[in-house]
Amino acid sequence: MASNLKFTKELVTFLGKSVIALLETLIFTFIPRPRKNVAGEIVLITGAGRGLGRLLALRFAHLGSVLVLWDINKEGNEETCRMAREAGATRVYAYTCDCSQKEEIYRVAEQVKKEVGDVSILINNAGVVTGSDFLNCPDDLMEKSLDVNFKAHLWTYKCFLPAMIANDHGHLVCISSSAGLVGVNKLAETIVQKLKGIKTTIVCPFFINTGMFEGCSTVRPFLLPILEPEYVVEKIVDAILKEKVYLYVPRFLYFVMVLKSILPVKIALLLSDFMGVFNIMDGFVFKNKKH
Amino acid sequence: MASNLKFTKELVTFLGKSVIALLETLIFTFIPRPRKNVAGEIVLITGAGRGLGRLLALRFAHLGSVLVLWDINKEGNEETCRMAREAGATRVYAYTCDCSQKEEIYRVAEQVKKEVGDVSILINNAGVVTGSDFLNCPDDLMEKSLDVNFKAHLWTYKCFLPAMIANDHGHLVCISSSAGLVGVNKLAETIVQKLKGIKTTIVCPFFINTGMFEGCSTVRPFLLPILEPEYVVEKIVDAILKEKVYLYVPRFLYFVMVLKSILPVKIALLLSDFMGVFNIMDGFVFKNKKH
Repeated sequence: MASNLKFTKELVTFLGKSVIALLETLIFTFIPRPRKNVAGEIVLITGAGRGLGRLLALRFAHLGSVLVLWDINKEGNEETCRMAREAGATRVYAYTCDCSQKEEIYRVAEQVKKEVGDVSILINNAGVVTGSDFLNCPDDLMEKSLDVNFKAHLWTYKCFLPAMIANDHGHLVCISSSAGLVGVNKLAETIVQKLKGIKTTIVCPFFINTGMFEGCSTVRPFLLPILEPEYVVEKIVDAILKEKVYLYVPRFLYFVMVLKSILPVKIALLLSDFMGVFNIMDGFVFKNKKH
Repeated sequence: MASNLKFTKELVTFLGKSVIALLETLIFTFIPRPRKNVAGEIVLITGAGRGLGRLLALRFAHLGSVLVLWDINKEGNEETCRMAREAGATRVYAYTCDCSQKEEIYRVAEQVKKEVGDVSILINNAGVVTGSDFLNCPDDLMEKSLDVNFKAHLWTYKCFLPAMIANDHGHLVCISSSAGLVGVNKLAETIVQKLKGIKTTIVCPFFINTGMFEGCSTVRPFLLPILEPEYVVEKIVDAILKEKVYLYVPRFLYFVMVLKSILPVKIALLLSDFMGVFNIMDGFVFKNKKH
């Protein structure tokens, strides 16, 4: 009875907040969303020595931001620095940094904190492209892609997020690519399409009761139950034997993916919260160091 | 005129194949899809020493496959080996392998090729969980997650895919997680939800004419044009100032994401092919080694 009351209360709260978010989305399709003022904000742009990074620097120079420019290419970066000053920036700082090197990121970030201050807008823009067929791509180029295009984001967050949290003010910007949304040849491999004899199966189960996630719990067991391993394995083997490309367990996840693609972000987040996604790991017991 | 004819021909081919794929999907919602025979197939399962990996091994033992079991935990792996024999497998091979170590994967893979033969079903199941708040998670644990949960897949593909391609026969299975579909606390971070003062913006543009992707071309410029950097930067700055969470450029990509979530995989792949996604990089010129 008490749990029914709790559920009803949570459902009403979720629906109420969703209606507000929906109204907000509708309003902002007709009148433009207000833009925030970034004058005086400390904006760090990685890969500022050319391309998008340089153009972003020039735009933020116009907007009166303090600029921190990182690039592995000292020359290009200093050219951007000069151009930003011409575009009206009064405080511009250029640092040479190889974003594939964690220690270098940590070192240069400390320098920035001392010499400029707390970064409040962090734009991870630096990126490398392999552009080679999967099997012909050298291992070190693959690792470098991961280092620059992904890990550098982690390390820069670790450097600059604590001050943002302390100030309850900050903005993380990730310059990704539509190539991250669908497979593109020579970037992600497209085996399914090109080689008819080779099958692929990607399995995305919800939490399974194998001990790996011991202590985790679900708040909506009727839609997202903690799964029994025997059941999941049956589904996986079935998917392999039927050569299915995707398997989501439970089935409700297919619906989640559709909702994710059509709902406004705010409502999707409210739904995730209602489904308990942000609290699943709260009771997690770390123990399986060896697995 | 000739290009109009070519487009019409491609469109008709795409629509025709899509109708066939749709019919196939419809048929298989009513009658079960046929299952393939995996007796005699060489099935490699990573992380076979416990949990899902062990249960998968037992299922493939029942199905008459040759089993190659990998785990960092020798004891658990040998126990699975023994259980698989009891379950009816006649050929089971256990190898101790730390999937976070590339060199170890390469060494053990060579041993498998010599001692057992060409793996035809590769199940990347080994995984580690960090289960810690982002800022409190040690760097090396993050790297280990990437090493085991992602990079090990790359290295095992490199080892076993060439023989699969040569035989035009094989199956890659990736045991992922629904935690890869939406952010989950203590796994991916959920900053947007919890810290109201910290904003995030994720930018996914199509190819941009910055020189990074020199030589790439689009076959459907009216829907997916190669973008001008100035235009993209305007959109990015606008998204930052309006604190948007996602920005897809061009807008057509929002529609692509909806289609991806509702279309059957075969049709989604046909559409990707029609849109030229699998040929975008064909003319790519590798030059920007220093960016």
